[in-house]
Amino acid sequence: MVDTDKATVAPEDQVHDLEGGIEQDVVEALAADEQGRLRQLIEPLHHADVASLLERLGAGDRDQVVDILRPDFDHEILAELDETVRDHVIDRLGVEEVAAALQEMDSDDALDVIEELDDEEQQQVLDAIPAGDRTLIEEGLSYPEDSAGRLMQREVVTIPTFWSVGETIDFLRKSADREDGQAGGENELPTQFYDIFVVDPMHKPVGTIPLSRILRTARQVPVTDILETDMKLLPVTTDQEDVAIVFRQRNLVSAPVVDNAGRLVGAITIDDVVDVIDEEHEEDIMLLGGVKEDDLYDATLDTTRARFGWLLINLATAILASIVIGLFDATLDQMVALAVLMPIVASMGGNAGTQTLTVAVRALAMKELTPTNAARVIGKEALVGLFNGVMFAALIGVVAWLWFDNLGLGAVIGLAMVVNMFVAGLAGTTIPLALDKLGIDPAVASSVFLTTITDVVGFFVFLGLAALLLF
Amino acid sequence: MVDTDKATVAPEDQVHDLEGGIEQDVVEALAADEQGRLRQLIEPLHHADVASLLERLGAGDRDQVVDILRPDFDHEILAELDETVRDHVIDRLGVEEVAAALQEMDSDDALDVIEELDDEEQQQVLDAIPAGDRTLIEEGLSYPEDSAGRLMQREVVTIPTFWSVGETIDFLRKSADREDGQAGGENELPTQFYDIFVVDPMHKPVGTIPLSRILRTARQVPVTDILETDMKLLPVTTDQEDVAIVFRQRNLVSAPVVDNAGRLVGAITIDDVVDVIDEEHEEDIMLLGGVKEDDLYDATLDTTRARFGWLLINLATAILASIVIGLFDATLDQMVALAVLMPIVASMGGNAGTQTLTVAVRALAMKELTPTNAARVIGKEALVGLFNGVMFAALIGVVAWLWFDNLGLGAVIGLAMVVNMFVAGLAGTTIPLALDKLGIDPAVASSVFLTTITDVVGFFVFLGLAALLLF
Repeated sequence: MVDTDKATVAPEDQVHDLEGGIEQDVVEALAADEQGRLRQLIEPLHHADVASLLERLGAGDRDQVVDILRPDFDHEILAELDETVRDHVIDRLGVEEVAAALQEMDSDDALDVIEELDDEEQQQVLDAIPAGDRTLIEEGLSYPEDSAGRLMQREVVTIPTFWSVGETIDFLRKSADREDGQAGGENELPTQFYDIFVVDPMHKPVGTIPLSRILRTARQVPVTDILETDMKLLPVTTDQEDVAIVFRQRNLVSAPVVDNAGRLVGAITIDDVVDVIDEEHEEDIMLLGGVKEDDLYDATLDTTRARFGWLLINLATAILASIVIGLFDATLDQMVALAVLMPIVASMGGNAGTQTLTVAVRALAMKELTPTNAARVIGKEALVGLFNGVMFAALIGVVAWLWFDNLGLGAVIGLAMVVNMFVAGLAGTTIPLALDKLGIDPAVASSVFLTTITDVVGFFVFLGLAALLLF
Repeated sequence: MVDTDKATVAPEDQVHDLEGGIEQDVVEALAADEQGRLRQLIEPLHHADVASLLERLGAGDRDQVVDILRPDFDHEILAELDETVRDHVIDRLGVEEVAAALQEMDSDDALDVIEELDDEEQQQVLDAIPAGDRTLIEEGLSYPEDSAGRLMQREVVTIPTFWSVGETIDFLRKSADREDGQAGGENELPTQFYDIFVVDPMHKPVGTIPLSRILRTARQVPVTDILETDMKLLPVTTDQEDVAIVFRQRNLVSAPVVDNAGRLVGAITIDDVVDVIDEEHEEDIMLLGGVKEDDLYDATLDTTRARFGWLLINLATAILASIVIGLFDATLDQMVALAVLMPIVASMGGNAGTQTLTVAVRALAMKELTPTNAARVIGKEALVGLFNGVMFAALIGVVAWLWFDNLGLGAVIGLAMVVNMFVAGLAGTTIPLALDKLGIDPAVASSVFLTTITDVVGFFVFLGLAALLLF
């Protein structure tokens, strides 16, 4: 009998196992050095939860947990770990243990783990893997980084065009099941699959059949009657970002990957694409925030060093803005109110520009901003900048007038605000579009160009107009 | 015979159909008002590509294309459209056409379309749908927004615990196939499915079986021998963000949704989760950039209005910073160099803080930053701020000293820089953590608090130290 109680409904705030206080219990058990209790707490956890736990622990605690896991190490934990943490875990586990884990994995997961190792570790681990599996991994490594070739799983289910549904099912039943641990050879099936690929004698894909369609079709029906020929073939060299876009647009769960000659060499499945989507998104959000990559788990000094470069560029642009201010030192000397008000103009331009920039960078990444609508979007954003500029000019103009009892000063700051917010709207779209055209990721450099422009224009126009009109 | 030539390999830069110049051709055909050519260009396109095309066209052109599509409107286009554009398309299509399209869709897609309509339109469309389908949709609408209940598809494949693999396959073959257009009733199968759910007599899920496992198991094997009981049951009220985290962590393609009593009421599939992941990503990146939502396709005035609020808050904080500067007007009057240099301190603090903030907000969204590691992360970020602060203090100190030939001024700006960058590191983590604890989305408000702090502290410490030490 099946034990129905096993699958209990998670209370809403406990959809993630780790949030049920287990994490806290583990930390306490580690502090008290209670090995037995630790084992009891960790063993029932799902491998994804073990991975989350390892990520959140400090380095010393993490090593302790790895030691507890070692005797019966679940290879799936490795695939789920953040890169920095995985590096630590691999160091602690040792080459033999890692090589053994890699052989258990599907080829795409194994590749995913091994491609992040440094060259020396990579060679050591590869040497510890038997020739068959090693060749598969080495072939995978020969494809460009972040390409479909790296993402795909080599194990695919292929059938010839002349089979029936019944023959296909019989073939699947007979094929070695990887999970049963039998040696599979050519017939090795992937751990999980969602589509069957029909290939011609040259091994070129002719169509795909979702498993659900196989299951509801009678045995005698030929596979050619139910296959979908309107499929997307992904060349091995396709960039992973483009792979994600195809999956997203077509609502795919798996897609065939082909070599230069159009022969089927593997398949990409949705779980890997979800990782790519997360990765690409993380890259965008981090780059916009001036961080090279998610460095949550990095050591303090590594993080300090990684962030230094971006700050240095910003120091240069800040000094540039100061030089612009310095041009007007005589003007500032005459009226200290200008020094008090000038950051407002620069800051509002920066904020308005960042709004525009964020929308444009995201739209470029999602391929929603294209040559077809670029001119329309630039025009719209410049107008939005102008309209908001006029409203904020009125607001700040009145504030400045009343604050310093000087109508001229109010007029000057209002004018400068309109100009700077219009420029911000224009720059917020044209900068990312120009960078994209030059082949530079617009998320990397857009914001530094933008704030340089809004600072320089903001200070120059405000102080320049003041020098012209107020004295 | 199957036509192998149908599935050609896309050249690498043409993974997206629309990039092959078709988009440009459509725009030209629209400009020249060539209806026949338009039809020829659009008809062979995949529904996802038609959706992208509609999104990129201006309003007038879009209406023209909708009219061309109308006679044979593919309901799947609606599900793929951006909300703003979908609103336009629905207006142009009319209630009858939309109601007809909704009946063709799986329940989750139909709900997705209808939940975005305004109340009046929603009622009109619902009235035009026959009672059976209408009830399903109305039930869906009764679940909270952004919950598992809204995401799930009502059509699921369930089987009793006492069946064998063979009985399951026979059942699937006999069941009405939705795609065949037959009336299905209780036995209606989803268009596509990836897992079969085994339920007890109370309709509570006992386990799941991936289709690939059914296919490789012999007919006589009881389903209870191959089912996975270690599954995640999602309560209908689970927030979609948590649904995405579960799918991501467990590499799921579908998951069962249960009501309060633990009975199976539907299933969520990965394609909907990918949309959620994109949506949540978009929300994070937009909110950090000070934009309520992706407004690429919104009208100029709507966008202007939507962005006004955020800019107004920023104006208030900029004025606050100016008030702080105003406290030191006498000091500024004595030395204009202070006015020239002061934006540098504020700007560097803002940039360093934004780096920290970005990492923290992202880590909170991904549930990587938790009570277990919060103290460690805060400490680390404060240290990173301090270390970089010391380095940039040395740099800017020397620059200021040489520029204005004033060693004291160099010392003052250096000191202010260390303080502000340390505060930025501290605020960059504590602000989002505090907002999260208060139940406020840290992406919304973090950056405005942060820049207020770095501006105020930057100006106050720099000008205050100058007033204390230089005169």
